[in-house]
Order: sequence, then structure tokens, then C-alpha cells
Amino acid sequence: MVQDLHGFFYPRTVALIGATDKPDKPGRAILENLAHFSGAVYPVNPRHATLLGHHCFPSIKDVPEAIDLAIIALPASLVEQEIDAVHAKGVRNVIVISSGFSEAGEQGRMMQQRIADKAERYGIRVIGPNALGIYNTENGLDSFFVSRERVSRPAAGRLSIISQSGAITVILMEALSRDGMGLAKAINYGNRLDVDEADALDYLADDPQTGAVAMYMESVGDGRKFLAAAKAFCEKKPLVVWKAGKHEMGAAAVASHTATLAGTYGLYQAAFRQAGAVEAYGFDHLIDAAKAVALMEYPCIGDRLLVVTNGGGMAVAASDQAQREGFTMPAMPHAVRERLQQAFPAFFVTNNPIDITGSGNNEDYATALAEALPHYDAAVVIVLMGATTVTEEATELIARACHAAKKPVTCCILQGLGYTREAMSALLKLGVPVYPSPERAVRALAALRKATCKDAGSE
Amino acid sequence: MVQDLHGFFYPRTVALIGATDKPDKPGRAILENLAHFSGAVYPVNPRHATLLGHHCFPSIKDVPEAIDLAIIALPASLVEQEIDAVHAKGVRNVIVISSGFSEAGEQGRMMQQRIADKAERYGIRVIGPNALGIYNTENGLDSFFVSRERVSRPAAGRLSIISQSGAITVILMEALSRDGMGLAKAINYGNRLDVDEADALDYLADDPQTGAVAMYMESVGDGRKFLAAAKAFCEKKPLVVWKAGKHEMGAAAVASHTATLAGTYGLYQAAFRQAGAVEAYGFDHLIDAAKAVALMEYPCIGDRLLVVTNGGGMAVAASDQAQREGFTMPAMPHAVRERLQQAFPAFFVTNNPIDITGSGNNEDYATALAEALPHYDAAVVIVLMGATTVTEEATELIARACHAAKKPVTCCILQGLGYTREAMSALLKLGVPVYPSPERAVRALAALRKATCKDAGSE
Repeated sequence: MVQDLHGFFYPRTVALIGATDKPDKPGRAILENLAHFSGAVYPVNPRHATLLGHHCFPSIKDVPEAIDLAIIALPASLVEQEIDAVHAKGVRNVIVISSGFSEAGEQGRMMQQRIADKAERYGIRVIGPNALGIYNTENGLDSFFVSRERVSRPAAGRLSIISQSGAITVILMEALSRDGMGLAKAINYGNRLDVDEADALDYLADDPQTGAVAMYMESVGDGRKFLAAAKAFCEKKPLVVWKAGKHEMGAAAVASHTATLAGTYGLYQAAFRQAGAVEAYGFDHLIDAAKAVALMEYPCIGDRLLVVTNGGGMAVAASDQAQREGFTMPAMPHAVRERLQQAFPAFFVTNNPIDITGSGNNEDYATALAEALPHYDAAVVIVLMGATTVTEEATELIARACHAAKKPVTCCILQGLGYTREAMSALLKLGVPVYPSPERAVRALAALRKATCKDAGSE
Repeated sequence: MVQDLHGFFYPRTVALIGATDKPDKPGRAILENLAHFSGAVYPVNPRHATLLGHHCFPSIKDVPEAIDLAIIALPASLVEQEIDAVHAKGVRNVIVISSGFSEAGEQGRMMQQRIADKAERYGIRVIGPNALGIYNTENGLDSFFVSRERVSRPAAGRLSIISQSGAITVILMEALSRDGMGLAKAINYGNRLDVDEADALDYLADDPQTGAVAMYMESVGDGRKFLAAAKAFCEKKPLVVWKAGKHEMGAAAVASHTATLAGTYGLYQAAFRQAGAVEAYGFDHLIDAAKAVALMEYPCIGDRLLVVTNGGGMAVAASDQAQREGFTMPAMPHAVRERLQQAFPAFFVTNNPIDITGSGNNEDYATALAEALPHYDAAVVIVLMGATTVTEEATELIARACHAAKKPVTCCILQGLGYTREAMSALLKLGVPVYPSPERAVRALAALRKATCKDAGSE
């Protein structure tokens, strides 16, 4: 029985083969990032006695402790012999950072195959090559060769990332940090010599820290294995997956990028549907949908949408998108309308959308949601922070009203400068996902609906 | 002959009827904003002798100078009598900020009609009611009742805004400020008692400050007049227009919002196409396309797209989107490929997309563009700033290479924190529009293509 990925995410001891103090080298950035790891770190490099304050070992074999995880950050041509060394040391888990393998032509492909054969023979599991590897918020394990100055690491959260592309992985992490969204774990498996997307899904399905997964894939390692893993995963947790290389031109780019076949997009779509995964249509949609499913846990949601706004134009945009996504927007029940009319000035619109206009204040949002939300399945709340009557405190009132009604709600706040950004982060921290346009707020809610009700239709 | 809008945008003297020092009142915010106006400002309010350091007049008739523009910020029921007063004073241009007219039911509709009749009889042109009015970067004229603390005003630039919705107007201005994009003029005409979208287009077509227009509409005042104005405008400058209230649910929201008929979406689409305008599909698309057409002036662009990246996954996403938008991505010419291979390490991908990988640096971008861009019609350049080898100076090298090749280029930089935001603004200031996802960078380039070549197909 092949061991699962626990040893990759929770090693007690890590050896970094190819550690260095040379700036711009992956082995330097990783060594610095491993300073945040709660376990023991052993740099390996025969040309150094010490590195950044660590004792440095000529070979992994010289490390006086058992090693749970080896990270190899050497030029491609030097990797194969290190597989023998880590085997001799009894290491079972290896991350190969190095690029220059199957993505770089025939010679690289052959090198990669030899490593794969050796690893299988030795019973060693390998992530990579041509990969960033693992980031685990819980214990600070971080094999990414990008500095924290350049790519900030998100705080702890419920979302995990599985990505074939390193670039997409770091961009996702950067976007989560920027928005104040948390991360549980991230894995970038690169050339997929051994560990693939299905292995990652299997592991994260049972990971108590992971509440949902955002996934980027260009191709699949083993179609049947992926479908089985995705199905099993979606029984437990929401999965949002973005398959790039959909069309001919994208597929050609995939061939250059990961030297894999992007395959027929229709087959992927069918697999995602069968598994119950939410398909994202691009980068924005992936992160938007991931936020919604990671922050909100609900059983199957109905299609009756409420929209609350202080700017009518934004509600029109939301209504157009709501129709595209398969929502309905039933009129305000008569009794509720009467109560809203008593509570509000005459010029507020008490239909659905509710429009508290540029004169509406924080409490008006709370009133609108308290009265109307119980009569709908979900809501999109649009807050134009430009109105002088709306302040940052609106976020707490809105979040409280949503939680009281126990209904899923997404917000739209333009990500402007200063206080709008703070309002956005405040709402996110209260568990209400926020989006920079009304269309995206509606689309994210639709993604949550698809994730929770396997047959919720749209588009 | 009805006078054009010049008097609205370039008055020498402005009277603000309903000026006040009460916080949260429109008349207070507007008075504060008029402090930035280069002309003379006369507050009118019978209950004050002075207001915020201005001498205050009991009636507009008491102002000792001729008034070019009157801004009325009073409750709806008090507006009608002021039309008589401004007429007595000889004012020809009036902005009515007040809401509570046709958007607020039958009584409001009748009040609005009486004002329209009077204005026509008097030969007074009216913007509004239920409108923000005018913002003109050139002379600081600012009738918007939103404070500069809450909604920052963009610097001077070539883009102008015409919007039926006040909310969308301020959100657009906030987004432009945030990104460091400039603005020429903005007009929000609200209930369209007199001045409509066609008048605004006619005026801005000949405005030397305006290079392009971003337009938001829910309905049209006069279909024929709009089509003629849009056609004439597009002969001179690019127009990007977002029509909201496309679908049944959005149209219902329009009825609540501006009390107008959203009409049949198909007719709008046909009109946009006939006029040569670029149709935007939502808020993000409107601002993305507007940036592209305002920053880049090119004759009809071909469909041969080059993609340059330092992260393969992002190039795959760009390639997928390029196909959707009707671009082709021809392979790199053999001779160019050889030169790139000589200049680059072996593991860079010298096809199209060019992938300089996470190891590529600023100069590699310049090399890639200098060699390849002359052989293509346009390019999308993706810069992952997480790579330690790429710094803010990349922006200048990229902009220089694009300008040297005289080819339109859009960039993708994730709008993260700190330096990524600075890099984005730096590029924008160098005339290269920047987008937060590869899909949006491609889509914006497609919008430019549609604006410059009336028959450039896609979707």
C-alpha cells in the first residue's frame, strides 16, 4: 500500500538538498522560508559548513537524525544521484523543486523517467519535479522558492489549493493574502512524476484543516483515478476546479508549459459535473467561487434571490447576472413591503431589489436584511462606500443580519483604496465573502449553490 | 437652436441653491467640492449669511453677477419655484441634484413634467433631476454630492464617463483613481428630464480633452437620436458602452431604479454594432475596455497575438481567452526563435507563448518583446511579480519595448499589495493598461481591436 501524503505535510524533520546563501537561488529562498517551519531543518551542501545560522551537512547521509522529508533544489542533472542518497538515508518523501525535466524536451523526459523508476523501486513518494511543493499554514512548512517579501503567505483558513502550475499557486496565495482570506494547505505538483491531483484530493478530503479546495489543472494524470478522487472528495467538501487549456490555442500552450496533453475539454466538463465539482471559467472565477465555498457552509440552497443595494445601477447589473445564473428574484411579500415602508423614507425602493439609495445608512441595511432575508434563499448585498451615510460599521451589522437569518450572502464592495479595502477584509473575517463587482458577487453565490446542490442549474 | 453642453462644463460662475453647512446634506458636500472649481461660486440659502467662508445669498436673484450654471440641491417639492427664479436671473444651464421625481411615483413624475415644460418654455437646459451632474477635471467643476474623502477624484486623463446611474459613476471614478488612471469629464444625467446620453455624446465628440468615452445606460431617451449620436461619436473616438437591464430580471430592476423601460436588449446590441461601439458585458468589462481604448490609439489591429509570460499557467489561461476573442496565435517565426534561443537559457520556452519562467528577469522581457513583437499585431504580457528576478524596473523596459514596436500591448499583473500595485500604476502611467487576470488582459485588447476595426469578430 502506497503511503498517503501525510509525511509531506507533517514531517518532523526536513533536509534541504541544495541549500545555499546565494541570492536568487531557489535553495536560498527555501532555506529562508523554512525558518517558519515548526520542525527541524537540515541544510545539505558540501561547500558550506554553516548556512544562515544552520549547521550545514555535506550529504543527507551525514545528518545525525532520521529525515521525514527531503527537498531537492539542485540543477536537474544532479537530482538522480540524490534519489539514491535519500534512499540510503531511509527518507520516504521527496519534493523535487528543480526544473529541466519532461517540460524541457526529450533528454529531460528520460531523466524524469529514470527518477520515477528509482523512486518506485525504493518506495519513495515524489512531488515534482518542476514544482513549488508544499505550503502548510498549520506547521509553517514552506518549500516554495518565492520569498515572503515578494509573495505574502495567507493566515490560517479553511481553503486549500491544489495546482499544476506554480505561477497560479503563488498568484492565488497572493490574492488570498491581499483580501485577508485564510489558507489551510497548498500543493503544486508540477510535472507529476508520482504524486498527482488525485492523491492530493484524497489526502485533503480527510484533512481536518481543509474545508474546501480550489484546484487548477491543465491536464490529468489518470482520468479514472481523478474522477474517483473528485467524487469522493465532493461527497465531503466543496471542490472548485479551473481547467485551463480548454481550447485549441490553450491546449497548445499547455503542451509548451507542462508537456502534457490538455485533452478534450468536453470530457473534463463531464467529469466535473459527474463528481459534483464546481467548474471555474478562469482565474477570477476560481478565486471568487473558492472564497464563497470556503467561507459559507450551507445545505442545498434554493433559487430565490434577494438583492439589497444603495445604488440602483449596481442592482440592475446584479439582476441581469442573477438571471444568467439561474436565480429567480421574487417580488417582496406584501406584509414585508409594508413593514419596510414604515421603517424607511418614502423614496427608498422596497421591492426586490431593495434600494436604500445614496441616503441609506448602516442601520437601513440591517433593517432591510432582518425583514426581507428570512423570505428568500440567499442574498447579494451591494454597499457603495462612497455614500457619506454608510460607514465601516455597516459590515458588522450586515454580517450579523446574515448570520441571524442563517442564509448565504455575498457582498459587493468596490476594492478601492483605504477604507473600502478595510471594509472588505472586515466582512471577510466575519465570514461574508466580498467581491469587487455585482456580477462577481452573484456568480460566487451561484457557485456555492452548485457546490451544495449538485443539480442547481445555470448557464 | 438648442445650446450645447459647453455652459455646463465650462461656466465662469456657479450658484448653488440649497447650499448648507449641515453634514450629510448634498448641499454641504457640493459646496465643499466646489472649493476646487476655478470659477466663482455663489451659495444660495435664505437662512445663512455666510457658509464655509463664502458670502451666502438669500435668493439667486440677489447674486450681484451673471450666473452661468445653477445647481439645485433642494427637496423635490421646492425645485419648481427655483426654475422661475433662475429664469428671472437669466441662467441658461441648471443641474437638478434632487431626487423624488419620476423615479418616486406618479406625483414625482408630474412634478418632473411641470419642470420640463417650464424649462423648455424658458429655454433653460436641465441635467437631472436625481443626478450627480458634472465633474470636469480641467477646471475642477464638481457638482457631485459625494465627499472627496469617500470617493477620490481621478487625475487628468483622456477618458470621459457618461452614466445614467450615479452609483456607477462614482464607482467608475473610484476605480480610475485607485488604478492611477486619468479622467477628462464625467456626466451623470439621472432622470433625463432634458439632457440625455445623446447630447452628452455629441458634446464629448468635439471635446479636445476627451479621447474616449465609457458609458453606462439602462434605457435610452430617444433611440434614433442616440444611434445618430453614437455613430457620429464613433467616427471620431472609441465608445465603450454597458447596457444594463439586459434580461427580464434586470429590466424589472431598471423599472424600480430609473422608472424607464429597459427595452429589448437585441435592439440595443444592434444599435451598438451599427454605431461601431464596443459593448461591455458588465462593470469589470466596461472599465477594462475603457482603459484600453483611452490609453492606446491605433489604427485597425490584426488578429495575430503574441503572449509573453514568466508563468506558464497564466499563458494557458490567456491562450484560451485569446481563442474565445477571435485572436490567432501564430507560432514564432523560425529566425526569431533561433535568436531567442541564443539570448535565453535552454529552459525558456521560445514558442508563442514565450515563457521566460520564474527565472526570467526584466531584460528578458525586453528581449522577448524586441525580437518577437514586430512579427505580431499585438501582445499580452504577463508579469508575475512574485519572481525574485523581476523588479519594478520591468515596467519601464516593457513599456519602452511596446512603444518601440508601435504595437498595442496589455499587461497582466495581479493587483496584490504594495509593489505590485505600484508596478501597475507605473505601467499605466507609461500608457500600458494593466489587468489583474490574463483573461481580462486579453479581453481588453479584444475591445481595443473592436473599437478600431469595426468588423473585428469575436464571441
